[in-house]
Amino acid sequence: MANIKEIARIAGVSVTTVSRVLNNHPYVSDIKRAAVLNTIEQLNYSRNMNAVHLITGRTGAIAVILPYINLYYFSIVMDGLAHEALNAQYRLILCQSNYAAEEELKVLEMLRNKEIDGVVIVSTALQPEVIEEYTDYGPVITCQDSGERRFSSVYIEHYEAFWDGLQYLSSKGYRKIGYCEGRQNGSSASIRQSAFRAFLSERNLPFREEWMVYDCMTEEDGAGVALSLLDMQDRPEVLIITGDHVAAGLIIEARKHGLRIPEDLAVMGFDNQPIGRLLDITTIDNHLYDMGAAAFRIIHEQIRTGSRVPVHRKLDYEIIERGTV
Amino acid sequence: MANIKEIARIAGVSVTTVSRVLNNHPYVSDIKRAAVLNTIEQLNYSRNMNAVHLITGRTGAIAVILPYINLYYFSIVMDGLAHEALNAQYRLILCQSNYAAEEELKVLEMLRNKEIDGVVIVSTALQPEVIEEYTDYGPVITCQDSGERRFSSVYIEHYEAFWDGLQYLSSKGYRKIGYCEGRQNGSSASIRQSAFRAFLSERNLPFREEWMVYDCMTEEDGAGVALSLLDMQDRPEVLIITGDHVAAGLIIEARKHGLRIPEDLAVMGFDNQPIGRLLDITTIDNHLYDMGAAAFRIIHEQIRTGSRVPVHRKLDYEIIERGTV
Repeated sequence: MANIKEIARIAGVSVTTVSRVLNNHPYVSDIKRAAVLNTIEQLNYSRNMNAVHLITGRTGAIAVILPYINLYYFSIVMDGLAHEALNAQYRLILCQSNYAAEEELKVLEMLRNKEIDGVVIVSTALQPEVIEEYTDYGPVITCQDSGERRFSSVYIEHYEAFWDGLQYLSSKGYRKIGYCEGRQNGSSASIRQSAFRAFLSERNLPFREEWMVYDCMTEEDGAGVALSLLDMQDRPEVLIITGDHVAAGLIIEARKHGLRIPEDLAVMGFDNQPIGRLLDITTIDNHLYDMGAAAFRIIHEQIRTGSRVPVHRKLDYEIIERGTV
Repeated sequence: MANIKEIARIAGVSVTTVSRVLNNHPYVSDIKRAAVLNTIEQLNYSRNMNAVHLITGRTGAIAVILPYINLYYFSIVMDGLAHEALNAQYRLILCQSNYAAEEELKVLEMLRNKEIDGVVIVSTALQPEVIEEYTDYGPVITCQDSGERRFSSVYIEHYEAFWDGLQYLSSKGYRKIGYCEGRQNGSSASIRQSAFRAFLSERNLPFREEWMVYDCMTEEDGAGVALSLLDMQDRPEVLIITGDHVAAGLIIEARKHGLRIPEDLAVMGFDNQPIGRLLDITTIDNHLYDMGAAAFRIIHEQIRTGSRVPVHRKLDYEIIERGTV
């Protein structure tokens, strides 16, 4: 492969001149420019950014690990990340992992191999100990609370948020509380389940296995829950559902079958999604866009300054009172 | 920077042994492995993939240009792309351009600079002539019909699909047809508008400016359209809406105000989204996931084979008859 020195030699100009032509710098005579461009064409040379990265030690790229891009939660976090990345002129490499640990590890290996400058982990199948092993190679940030780890994090306190939501339902007089969750074994999901059980136990509220539903990811899953409730002898009075779109599906289907919301069944959602605003769904706003934006800003700052001190930032959440509770 | 030869020399082993240790190959004695790992630690060496790319001339990365990741249309196309990319062990670099032409150009420049192996353009602000200028540097595919260009494309015929949708409405006896569109000046949107005007004109159906609504991107925009219809003296009998989530917003809001769907107002959506299935919305399924998956497979094949012959693949669409027409 031809390099800049070789081009300069063949074209009979200085290396500086070649570099100026490559970078479209104005102060180059037309004759020299033509000589360089002809030589480049002869040698079929293209400025190779991989060589530039090799020299500067920076790639201008950050990888993002998330399981599914087409779920509201993840697409909004990605929106925040991508918006900030564009502002900072950083490239985002998206790994839609479907929670395959080996694929997530490959992304962390990219950090070790200096192919990227940092990794944002929105949600992961990996244990925190595994992620920590890579922090020597560059900054890593998760969008989950993993405690005082060697990598950074930006998160909402799912335990606290869920507890507050339950407290709100309890304050409204509900005693029979059901719960619809996405992926049962997700790390945030596990935290919410702990909060749920602890709250019911502390308040002496009934816990019933059939009021716990997992794998509620889509509007149609929510509708399925509504149908299963119809056949239930002893129904919960209220459901807390980790996603307004799932809550929307449930509400729409429940109303088709004559259930009144909130009189026959109250519903509390999560995420403050557009469909939730439209259906007047009481919800907990996690500020997901802000989480993505903050994750980018933190990791970008760490790349810029070379700091390896992990940052742990807790974000606010808020209960938005509407008509379904 | 230390290279493999230097490590081998210092560790007193062969280059092959160093390479085996780096790649976690099993056939290395514990003593030699320890020698290599110690040397690496001393030299603070990391296998540098930028050097690997420089040698192989391939990066294993494809860039994707799209305007907004958090819209259903784009997140589903991205899902298809990302799924295939994971299968092929290719990395996706996401550029959420917000239709900023200069940002989209930067991505194409990455192709010229050999930072990526190809570009998938899901939707763009760039003219086809500009995109064509980059086809010498590597394969490019768009998810729009741009005619017989020097870059590839995978697309549905928006004109034909829209025409068929209108024909379906017309066959059901509707004469007063309104239209809600996303970005007015998008290339697909422009095609649909031509189809709309041509159809009304051919069938002698009334065209009314106030029945044309643009910038309908979200559920809440759909709800806004419903409200504006309430005040309208002469309302359309049916609306064709380019997105089931927007149609859902409109239907939910319209029903709140006592409008019966389809008796008082019929609705036809696009994209066959989960919320549309739930609300029983008649729709045109564009097979968006398949479009993303096909785009990846085509460009990956071109990278693999080195072929520069553009591929133009038209995908099917289908009208799904449900309850809102």
